[in-house]
Amino acid sequence: MSKPALLLIDVQKGFDEPYWGQRNNPHAEAHIARLLAAWRQAQRPIIHVRHCSTEPNSPLRPERPGNAFKDEAQPLPGEIQFSKTVNSAFIGTDLEAYLREQVITDLVIVGLTTDHCVSTTTRMAANLGFTVTLVEDATATFDRKYNGRYYTADEIHQTNLASLHGEFCTVRPTAAILNEI
Amino acid sequence: MSKPALLLIDVQKGFDEPYWGQRNNPHAEAHIARLLAAWRQAQRPIIHVRHCSTEPNSPLRPERPGNAFKDEAQPLPGEIQFSKTVNSAFIGTDLEAYLREQVITDLVIVGLTTDHCVSTTTRMAANLGFTVTLVEDATATFDRKYNGRYYTADEIHQTNLASLHGEFCTVRPTAAILNEI
Repeated sequence: MSKPALLLIDVQKGFDEPYWGQRNNPHAEAHIARLLAAWRQAQRPIIHVRHCSTEPNSPLRPERPGNAFKDEAQPLPGEIQFSKTVNSAFIGTDLEAYLREQVITDLVIVGLTTDHCVSTTTRMAANLGFTVTLVEDATATFDRKYNGRYYTADEIHQTNLASLHGEFCTVRPTAAILNEI
Repeated sequence: MSKPALLLIDVQKGFDEPYWGQRNNPHAEAHIARLLAAWRQAQRPIIHVRHCSTEPNSPLRPERPGNAFKDEAQPLPGEIQFSKTVNSAFIGTDLEAYLREQVITDLVIVGLTTDHCVSTTTRMAANLGFTVTLVEDATATFDRKYNGRYYTADEIHQTNLASLHGEFCTVRPTAAILNEI
């Protein structure tokens, strides 16, 4: 069995801007940093994904300062990076080809946001045949409004995890994953 | 602009079995039937997707009676059908190639279930560049359990629509769509 790769989705500074709304799980970045340190120490594969938005007002546009990776998720030289313009890290990128070439079959996914890019990438990874672990406390999202109702970020986060768990991935906390390295 | 295609996801008899849990929106099939009739009358493109599960116990396995389309969504001769084995109707099928060849750019998505195959197909359609309308009352899902908590089918349905609306698609009711045909 191959070593599982840590796939970091869009851990970028632009998500700190008020543009996105109210966030949950402020400790996500600390958990991501701990997982990243453990992955480096164990010499497991690490893959950084950066969102390069084409939306006119997005803080994640390539020319904006918010496009930069957060301090907790700065790639080291030699760690592979993929840039994407849509939610799925598999569309418009060479991620799938890279994983096949490296014979990586297991992914541990962290990053932002739970219900948009993390969920979409988790779903597509699973449907492409990869085994996915999604780290519940190393991801986060923002509040959403729909049909005159307001949903808190935590409500969106939890229900989206409930939809993913068992169908597309196993949802687990950071501590359980660190315990097994 | 091309005529929007009606994309029917997994409207199959096997979803009536207790295997899946408690469902919401019992009127989904009636709404699907009305949309299908309107699409046929307007001679707009119709695409049927059938799930052929590889899960050992799934009522949607190809050899089970539950694999059949429900009466409300029976294809007519000449209407195209795609079979899939994963959630996304775009993975392991020729759906994308067919849509490009037919110059179909707009999809109206209905079917089962909101947070699994419908959500995954909606996300991937949007990320591949299609314009997607998701019909909120022509889809439904089941209750989910995660992390010791129970989520009703309606809670899962509504929050998943909230995550999709505006990011991947426009969520609209059947009546609004029928009004415009």
